[in-house]
Amino acid sequence: MPDRSDIDALIEMMARLPGLGPRSARRTVLHLIRKRELQLTPLADLMTRVAATARECLNCGNVGTSEICPICADERRGNGQICVVEDVGDLWAMERGGSFKGRYHVLGGTLSALDRIGPEELRIPQLVARVESEGITEVILALNATVDGQTTAHYIADQLETRVAMSSLAQGVPIGGELDYLDDGTITAALNARRKL
Amino acid sequence: MPDRSDIDALIEMMARLPGLGPRSARRTVLHLIRKRELQLTPLADLMTRVAATARECLNCGNVGTSEICPICADERRGNGQICVVEDVGDLWAMERGGSFKGRYHVLGGTLSALDRIGPEELRIPQLVARVESEGITEVILALNATVDGQTTAHYIADQLETRVAMSSLAQGVPIGGELDYLDDGTITAALNARRKL
Repeated sequence: MPDRSDIDALIEMMARLPGLGPRSARRTVLHLIRKRELQLTPLADLMTRVAATARECLNCGNVGTSEICPICADERRGNGQICVVEDVGDLWAMERGGSFKGRYHVLGGTLSALDRIGPEELRIPQLVARVESEGITEVILALNATVDGQTTAHYIADQLETRVAMSSLAQGVPIGGELDYLDDGTITAALNARRKL
Repeated sequence: MPDRSDIDALIEMMARLPGLGPRSARRTVLHLIRKRELQLTPLADLMTRVAATARECLNCGNVGTSEICPICADERRGNGQICVVEDVGDLWAMERGGSFKGRYHVLGGTLSALDRIGPEELRIPQLVARVESEGITEVILALNATVDGQTTAHYIADQLETRVAMSSLAQGVPIGGELDYLDDGTITAALNARRKL
């Protein structure tokens, strides 16, 4: 069917998005075609706009539409704390939590010898420079509790621990978590980090 | 963050797509922003094109880019068989099977008193008209094996059975299916429709 090529191409592109497979891509595209005016056109317009305006903050790596993101531009958030995250998604997750009042530094991944990702690729030199230039007093490592995340955390700690106070997120039982469903490592970490009542 | 509004709006729109929730929409949008040139821009362009060109075949209801879809335009498929499906997705599924050589008729849903969907909304009068005008010899009902699908099938059979041969898809054990995992209704249907070896 030669004249369906655009629709087929759209299905194929959607199927490559994370979380969508060929089946759900077909369903989604049909849904969008059925709601052309209400959904497909606005979605296409938004994507065009975002593709044109989205950019990474030159300072912290957050995604926004300006050279310096609103968090870095906000004077009130220059409280001397900097929170290091792997990814913009992690930054957004921290912001949804709403309790961190400082600034961020997005690494853009973790160290990985296999994928040839070294400190330069991860904006670690920029982090070291910011610690000096922004008068940072505490670096909070909010990296994922994976092997790669922890390796990266150790490397950053090595670079910075002589210059500034370092901390990392607490490990323990998640709020609402049931012990029976937690892995042994988490239970051991929670026990070791137990608090006096 | 006022200047992130386009990105937030995009996440919100993506989250409304079937199969995506807020979390996967955020992940998808971040992924697209990271691959702006390679994915976001082409996707936006394709969507714009599809929104402009996609239309329903005036004859059968299939989705394509021409007034009459390639299947209805193909002389070789005018073999006197017409396959009635609920949805364009079902038509595509039949075409992937690749063994049906006739034409289709897409109802666009099932009869439903609750949702005020009557025969007029489902293009049933058009189906009756096509049976006359296209010299149809067999109408194959390929409706979903749900209560609504079967109600609709009965209604169409009532309308057409005096004029043309009617049939429906066989019910039975799916290829590769294990009896232990099948519901009782399917097993009963497969037993009743058993074939001589």
